[in-house]
Amino acid sequence: MSKEIKGSTPKSDGFRMPAEFEPQDEIFMIWPYRTDNWRNAAEPAQKQFADVAKAISKFENVTMLAAHDQYENCRAQLPADIRVIETSSDDAWCRDSGPTFLIDGKGGRRAVNWTFNAWGGLVDGLYFPWNDDELIAQKICEITRTDYYRTEGFVLEGGSFHVDGEGTVLTTEMCLLSKGRNPDMSKQEIEHMLCEYLNCEKVLWLKDGIDPNETNGHIDDVACFIRPGEVCCIYTEDKSHPFYEASQDALKRLSCMTDAKGRQLKVHKLCCTKNPIFMEGAETIDHVCGSKIRQNGDLCIASYANFLICNNAVIVPQYDDENDELALSQIRDMFPDRNVVGVHTREIVYGGGNIHCITQQVPLNQVPLKRI
Amino acid sequence: MSKEIKGSTPKSDGFRMPAEFEPQDEIFMIWPYRTDNWRNAAEPAQKQFADVAKAISKFENVTMLAAHDQYENCRAQLPADIRVIETSSDDAWCRDSGPTFLIDGKGGRRAVNWTFNAWGGLVDGLYFPWNDDELIAQKICEITRTDYYRTEGFVLEGGSFHVDGEGTVLTTEMCLLSKGRNPDMSKQEIEHMLCEYLNCEKVLWLKDGIDPNETNGHIDDVACFIRPGEVCCIYTEDKSHPFYEASQDALKRLSCMTDAKGRQLKVHKLCCTKNPIFMEGAETIDHVCGSKIRQNGDLCIASYANFLICNNAVIVPQYDDENDELALSQIRDMFPDRNVVGVHTREIVYGGGNIHCITQQVPLNQVPLKRI
Repeated sequence: MSKEIKGSTPKSDGFRMPAEFEPQDEIFMIWPYRTDNWRNAAEPAQKQFADVAKAISKFENVTMLAAHDQYENCRAQLPADIRVIETSSDDAWCRDSGPTFLIDGKGGRRAVNWTFNAWGGLVDGLYFPWNDDELIAQKICEITRTDYYRTEGFVLEGGSFHVDGEGTVLTTEMCLLSKGRNPDMSKQEIEHMLCEYLNCEKVLWLKDGIDPNETNGHIDDVACFIRPGEVCCIYTEDKSHPFYEASQDALKRLSCMTDAKGRQLKVHKLCCTKNPIFMEGAETIDHVCGSKIRQNGDLCIASYANFLICNNAVIVPQYDDENDELALSQIRDMFPDRNVVGVHTREIVYGGGNIHCITQQVPLNQVPLKRI
Repeated sequence: MSKEIKGSTPKSDGFRMPAEFEPQDEIFMIWPYRTDNWRNAAEPAQKQFADVAKAISKFENVTMLAAHDQYENCRAQLPADIRVIETSSDDAWCRDSGPTFLIDGKGGRRAVNWTFNAWGGLVDGLYFPWNDDELIAQKICEITRTDYYRTEGFVLEGGSFHVDGEGTVLTTEMCLLSKGRNPDMSKQEIEHMLCEYLNCEKVLWLKDGIDPNETNGHIDDVACFIRPGEVCCIYTEDKSHPFYEASQDALKRLSCMTDAKGRQLKVHKLCCTKNPIFMEGAETIDHVCGSKIRQNGDLCIASYANFLICNNAVIVPQYDDENDELALSQIRDMFPDRNVVGVHTREIVYGGGNIHCITQQVPLNQVPLKRI
């Protein structure tokens, strides 16, 4: 019930990726289980994935994909109003393995099924193999009866870019120009792909993300659009903070950027945790050949910017850090019309990501009202 | 997105199972793969399952459930307009492992998730274990966001009964009173369960089916309702035909039955194959402990009555038998307003069932038009 569209692009067909703050239909997530990434057999992470799903489900439908052996456990851990569908996966990052949905504003919905290679393939990917994750996007398209464009050979993850829904893409050089993704493409060629497949006009490039060794610097830990013309960017004045340099550089660049519509970006500062978070309990993680090894003391990428915007709400990571409340308060100021809901996600951060990384929105396929 | 309804029954809640000839939303099927049931590694059967799916999809949406290892093969063998969703299964009989859907005529749809034990459990079931098949009904309810009643402990398969949608159930004693299902329940107690969960008033009992060693005599190889007050029943005058006795007995009993509304049943005769079909090529079937052994020369249950009624069509088994055309013509006479489409299903019969056995309809959830 979902076919690959060949011989055209979203731009040529009039489909665009809506911004995350536009109306949504549903959120997809994937249940974590791999014992070589998640400590304590993934059980603490499962509890926090369930907490994230429950928080979202107060505002919007959630579908959780669970592998065969985890189906009953997952079903038992989630309330009945969250849909669980069996789907194999290598890991649990639906933002990156899932499809990017597009709408045409006329009742049509499609998706882009990017090539996925576990954040760097055989160069510096995080696990091998990744064949089940490579099929996730197609399987979500099947479930939602969505036709899709396939970018065979063009590697991209959903967490490596944001759009404003009005022609602007925001991304990082660290990730999109990395050696493990599209090493034979120039920056201009990559810009062209983004603009064709997201239906955009202008790509805004930050230099670095904050997790060079994990996703190679995904934008979704650093900055995002909160409405057209306005972005949120992580910020700290503490020069000893591990995110200090990248966040200062991002802020400086964003402050002098204009978007596709020619608007100078308004930048909202979002605090970092007061204290960096470091890996603990890594001795319960299995060592498996081909998977990234996690060790006690590794810096965790605990950013408040990795929130999800969903219908009427923003779901925000919390870490039991001194700055948890400050982050919620700053995000409330950015989204005065939405509920801002904190969820503790330290276990998810131990596994390498956060709320935005583990969710993928299906936009509402709006038909515009007729003008009279 | 689908919860178990406890403390009530469909009858008490005003939900009924509609007849198969009422409007439908979608057909679910399951992709075959087990090498200890299907000859030649299930590949010929897969081709015929695909043929059945394609025939239905001309008239109605089809969703095919495919286990993890078969997903890509299944997706490749089916056209894009058939939806494929990953779901583990023990075998491929969606009629029997799937849910029975109910409607309330007011926009509500629910289902019954019967207990499934592989047609007889440890007494005379066809394979062990059956845990993935036992979850199929729940998983289809999740996919379709359908709340369900669970009959924990009450064993029933969808192929063992038919309803007319107006208060009548048709079934066989051979199956429902078998030792491998509900041996501690009386016939009256079983009638009560059928009436409560299908929302019916009267149970019509035939004595025997035609496959005592397979499903213990499912009704769906013998007779079915074609509209309220009218049934189709298999028929042969050939005393040497293996189905002669059961079909004569069924015809005799049906001819003097009245339905829940008090109507005397009108019985339409449907021919049997001219020549019985016997198993061939069984030497390519793997022998696995716990599974029924299939051998060359075994009688196959090749009945024309195992058709599926879907929107605007009837999908009918064909066997390259002399009576293929006669069967189509008789069914066309029974359904003058529907397309009658034959599909060759000899490979499916070698595996123990047929078109009705491998399909499960989701009824359209109709809201009645307001009377003015």
